[in-house]
Amino acid sequence: MSAKSLSYLDLVNICDNVHIGRKSPILSPFDSEKLVPLHLSEEPESPAIGLLRPIIVEQLTSENEQSRKNARPEMWVIAENRVSFSSWLNTAAKRTEAMIELCERWRDTGLFTDVCGPKKWRSEMYPVYRDPFGIRDHPSTNPDETKLNYAFELERSACALFGIITYGVHMSVFQEKEVDGERQLFIWVPTRAKTKQTFPGFLDNTVAGGIPSGMSAFDSMVKECEEEASYEPKVVKKYTRAVGCISYFFRTAAGWLQPEVEFVYDIAMPPDVDPTLFRPKPMDGEVEKFEFLDQNEIEARMRAGLFKPNCGIVIIDLLIRLGYITPDNEPDFLQIITRLHGRFDYDRWSL
Amino acid sequence: MSAKSLSYLDLVNICDNVHIGRKSPILSPFDSEKLVPLHLSEEPESPAIGLLRPIIVEQLTSENEQSRKNARPEMWVIAENRVSFSSWLNTAAKRTEAMIELCERWRDTGLFTDVCGPKKWRSEMYPVYRDPFGIRDHPSTNPDETKLNYAFELERSACALFGIITYGVHMSVFQEKEVDGERQLFIWVPTRAKTKQTFPGFLDNTVAGGIPSGMSAFDSMVKECEEEASYEPKVVKKYTRAVGCISYFFRTAAGWLQPEVEFVYDIAMPPDVDPTLFRPKPMDGEVEKFEFLDQNEIEARMRAGLFKPNCGIVIIDLLIRLGYITPDNEPDFLQIITRLHGRFDYDRWSL
Repeated sequence: MSAKSLSYLDLVNICDNVHIGRKSPILSPFDSEKLVPLHLSEEPESPAIGLLRPIIVEQLTSENEQSRKNARPEMWVIAENRVSFSSWLNTAAKRTEAMIELCERWRDTGLFTDVCGPKKWRSEMYPVYRDPFGIRDHPSTNPDETKLNYAFELERSACALFGIITYGVHMSVFQEKEVDGERQLFIWVPTRAKTKQTFPGFLDNTVAGGIPSGMSAFDSMVKECEEEASYEPKVVKKYTRAVGCISYFFRTAAGWLQPEVEFVYDIAMPPDVDPTLFRPKPMDGEVEKFEFLDQNEIEARMRAGLFKPNCGIVIIDLLIRLGYITPDNEPDFLQIITRLHGRFDYDRWSL
Repeated sequence: MSAKSLSYLDLVNICDNVHIGRKSPILSPFDSEKLVPLHLSEEPESPAIGLLRPIIVEQLTSENEQSRKNARPEMWVIAENRVSFSSWLNTAAKRTEAMIELCERWRDTGLFTDVCGPKKWRSEMYPVYRDPFGIRDHPSTNPDETKLNYAFELERSACALFGIITYGVHMSVFQEKEVDGERQLFIWVPTRAKTKQTFPGFLDNTVAGGIPSGMSAFDSMVKECEEEASYEPKVVKKYTRAVGCISYFFRTAAGWLQPEVEFVYDIAMPPDVDPTLFRPKPMDGEVEKFEFLDQNEIEARMRAGLFKPNCGIVIIDLLIRLGYITPDNEPDFLQIITRLHGRFDYDRWSL
């Protein structure tokens, strides 16, 4: 085990490591990059739905040049402080289709291999919303697109190329027991398979996954519970509680932008129940093993940096909600809570 | 009862109604006011600890003139985009003393009567911190002031004059019961006395109050529980859990600035316990009566605007944490959570 001893705020800083227009919590060589908002259309009131790094703006400029050469319509309107979809891309279906063509071509020609290359490609569509904090609706719920917050959908791996906010679900299956007169917390903790594309061998939340386009948060949770932990849907539906969300703006070591929202769920096992009744079993090969760890062990492994960063902060949120981390025992309490519920400086993307 | 039907986001907007440098969620005639940060000293790295309205900057300018006339040292250094304490006010004790003299004089001469007049004066000192999201320490914990986050203390009623962030505690005493096969929530809800200085006759959280300078959050909670609800300290200590905090930037109808942090506590009564065992009893005259209301009644009264605004959003936070408001049944879920854990645009006060 590593000899590191990270504070809880350190763990937050590793995950929420981007500040727009002011000093980042952890300095990065990418901090100086000028990020340009991506808008749905040229109209002034059209919302920003992503943030583009210079290398992407450059690539989109070259895409436009190619289109002109091939007498095809250009996909982008590129101004100094704003990139927009061209006006012919005026429906969700057209934007989705054009982005599929673009991203598959990038994948197949070896562009941005570390993000959307063949080994990173997920074959899973994620929704993009006009207001990323608004309702998560879908054409299947209302065919009148003008009434939807849904704007189009995009291959999961490509979201980081465009700085698009993505949504996931994370669950802790835990038990609180009286041990030597003290309340003690135990959590089912998986180790990620060594073959995972991201963070192989790291510790994770009991169950976690992304929310595919068109699926509700809770249905995604139920699906992941079955796929990752072999939990039966009826058990999940009976015991699971939605308990909030966390949000943080993560930049990868390679500089890619991943603003993320994770909806948080709990299964609180009753104190007198045999925890093995809720023992998760690896199903789809994404998890190597599950351990039922006590709080001290979990804290030690968190501080050693052994958890996947965003899974570590989901546990911090749990420790706060259960009263283990309090305003009186954690000096960084307010920093941690406010930073775990950030808005990605979104209101300033277009300023 | 009012015929209003406010959404949960409306209730958040009423409470978190200030955005710095961008459009406020509810337009106010005060939005156009230029707010100037108040710094501890003229040194560039000295942190902002408050925000001053033009009327206050004007008054501080006139205070300086009076001091000059009376051959006394000026309290303030007033620049265009920054007001600072003068360099002679270089300790917490000196700042506290000078501010007492100033605020008591304003009270006694009838300045800002609606905020710090004799009827609004609380005779209670609140702490002011260098970093408002940092540790809430105090000279009693460390006599070496240079090592403290504590900067000075200020009469409670005067904090709104200087836009200083204040800290409180709010608790819900509740029970979840199975009613007709459905989980149902009941909360002990007080009606504020008609004689209260603020929000008389409004509904409140079971127990709530401010955190006086030098007191821990939990000790304040225990004290308020005794004073407002006649709960015995040993009962409170046994059953209470710290469960997080909310933060929001409130501007009063008269334009005064009240950025607030409320530490949140729960007492979750077991489902099989007689709720009258936890019946709060009015003690200090601040509460008219307590009612044990079910969720439907609480929701109806919230939507009718009958709760004190910040108490309403503490209940929204509770409904989220207990899984009644979810990402799938509340379209404004993400707006609500991120706005309830705001940072007051603090990182931009000095920009």
